[in-house]
Amino acid sequence: MKSLTVQAASHRYPIYIGEGILQDFSLFQQKIGKKAAIITNDVVAQWYLQPLESSLHAHGIEFFSIVLPDGEIHKNNDSLQKIYDGLLTHHADRQTTILALGGGVIGDMAGFAAATYQRGIPFIQIPTTLLSQVDSSVGGKTAINHPLGKNMIGAFYQPQVVLADLSTLNTLPDKEFSSGMAEVIKYALLGDAVFLQWLEQNMPALMQRQPDILAEAVAHCCQMKADIVAQDETEQNVRALLNLGHTFGHAIETEMGYGTWLHGEAVAAGMVLACRLSERLYQLPAGDTERVKALLRQAALPDVPPAFSFDRWLTHMRHDKKVHSGKMRFVTLPQLGRAKVETIDDMDMLREVLREYTDF
Amino acid sequence: MKSLTVQAASHRYPIYIGEGILQDFSLFQQKIGKKAAIITNDVVAQWYLQPLESSLHAHGIEFFSIVLPDGEIHKNNDSLQKIYDGLLTHHADRQTTILALGGGVIGDMAGFAAATYQRGIPFIQIPTTLLSQVDSSVGGKTAINHPLGKNMIGAFYQPQVVLADLSTLNTLPDKEFSSGMAEVIKYALLGDAVFLQWLEQNMPALMQRQPDILAEAVAHCCQMKADIVAQDETEQNVRALLNLGHTFGHAIETEMGYGTWLHGEAVAAGMVLACRLSERLYQLPAGDTERVKALLRQAALPDVPPAFSFDRWLTHMRHDKKVHSGKMRFVTLPQLGRAKVETIDDMDMLREVLREYTDF
Repeated sequence: MKSLTVQAASHRYPIYIGEGILQDFSLFQQKIGKKAAIITNDVVAQWYLQPLESSLHAHGIEFFSIVLPDGEIHKNNDSLQKIYDGLLTHHADRQTTILALGGGVIGDMAGFAAATYQRGIPFIQIPTTLLSQVDSSVGGKTAINHPLGKNMIGAFYQPQVVLADLSTLNTLPDKEFSSGMAEVIKYALLGDAVFLQWLEQNMPALMQRQPDILAEAVAHCCQMKADIVAQDETEQNVRALLNLGHTFGHAIETEMGYGTWLHGEAVAAGMVLACRLSERLYQLPAGDTERVKALLRQAALPDVPPAFSFDRWLTHMRHDKKVHSGKMRFVTLPQLGRAKVETIDDMDMLREVLREYTDF
Repeated sequence: MKSLTVQAASHRYPIYIGEGILQDFSLFQQKIGKKAAIITNDVVAQWYLQPLESSLHAHGIEFFSIVLPDGEIHKNNDSLQKIYDGLLTHHADRQTTILALGGGVIGDMAGFAAATYQRGIPFIQIPTTLLSQVDSSVGGKTAINHPLGKNMIGAFYQPQVVLADLSTLNTLPDKEFSSGMAEVIKYALLGDAVFLQWLEQNMPALMQRQPDILAEAVAHCCQMKADIVAQDETEQNVRALLNLGHTFGHAIETEMGYGTWLHGEAVAAGMVLACRLSERLYQLPAGDTERVKALLRQAALPDVPPAFSFDRWLTHMRHDKKVHSGKMRFVTLPQLGRAKVETIDDMDMLREVLREYTDF
């Protein structure tokens, strides 16, 4: 088992990464109250709810479980209200601990419920997807979607501990595994050219889900995320770089309907667009873009966005949280392994970038 | 004009108290972005929206207004969603500043929207009721109600500045003015026996809304609140004393339907019950309870709770946020001017306290 520490403003907390640690009660017994609320979805519940419940039961923790339907389409106000209803119906108080058992959708929603129920109760992240293990479970971003924009309603709220159980990845569908791999590739592109080379060499082993290689990749990404969050918890500066590919990606997700393109798939296509934009901004070599596309294809990810009109792109991107005093901002790549936030005023440049791929 | 400072963990901010300061743009020009969202209700809007809009317009601030229906019954998820819809429709970004123009309901909802829109945007409190000027606008508690409990969904989130314009109290209905006076009396009972005497002497002048006397009372309460918040922003200990009368009071509001009893009216009756409980716990003299009741009557407040069954009282009080690991906690009065949080296990004692007033 590997362990790391995240130093957030509110408190320090550990990330544990290993096989089967979901049932290792000793890893979170210091962090849990007498009562727990497990929040999960119906797919994850089939595999992992009973083992977690057994572990709590064996250690005398009173608990109840709230099982939501699976999918990004349910990351909304309706599901949030179901969580609140469940917490109130079971008389959850300020000492009750929420256990978020699932992928990014569950982690984001359960985390936001924890941030806002009775003005904040403790919560523990138990991410069961590659995407949530390397990215969304670390760093305290919680949110739900709004019909007019992704993650528009949320809070910065840190967990007490993160348990990334690698054995849960065995049941992850290929498409979702690839989606998580997009975020792994993102870390390399935005901040670590050596890791990028390592990924190019090890992608076949990663795609075969070889446990040791996978543990190394997950731990490396978590460490990068932890370092960035320690510097900038509430995204005033460097943390924004983690949004590489996300302004374009969120537009794709919103246009296609949440869940039609998986988050990582949209981010993958978004990173290709960020490369294209960087070619125009900094003369990033077109060969570098091809290198990124090749790596994405190795991970069975799309390297081309879906086609829709420039007006639709603009409408969605204007709702992005990175918009600053009305101006659109993008994470760009002066070179592979180094990212920079740029304000883009030049609509023609943006139109050129998107023209290659879309119908106008 | 009087001014105070609140020292919160996240940042220091000023409270200004005076006549007509709503239109004094210089008091908040440092705190407002280029774009503002005014959130208010239809009653307050009639009187004060146009003056505030004129002031923003004159200083080149782009703004839009979201006008909600008036009343505690609307402090709910529906209104919150209307605020989010308005913010998104008007392309509010992270630099947009929310101006909460209204009483406690508007302040709590607009503050919670500010806390959660795009994971937090700045906001300014402009309280227009006595209750919100002395209590809810200061200290960063934001919330909405849930059908199963009052203020169950919320966040601790501090404003950038509080503008308590005393001239807005001229249009406040008598019943709401009295409701605010319940919170003024609360401060005296929980922490300041000298202020209690002052109130007994000055209540006739206060009820006539004499500006100088009123300014003194509002400033004194804000200072007490600011001192308590500086010690304990997130209610780990001393801040809980501000809930004097509120556990009983919230039960009354929930049972009767939000808004049937005004918040301050319910707190007034709740404080009488807290006195009765304190008679049993510490032999608080029954004469002290009578003194409290007399002061409440001077302020045209109820000194008797509505009648409902003990089971209903328990059901509502078990949902209170002060419940700690399943145990009910009450703010009690060892003497007038000094408060203490007590865990009450003795259901018979509680039954006795309530039997005097309710049908079983």
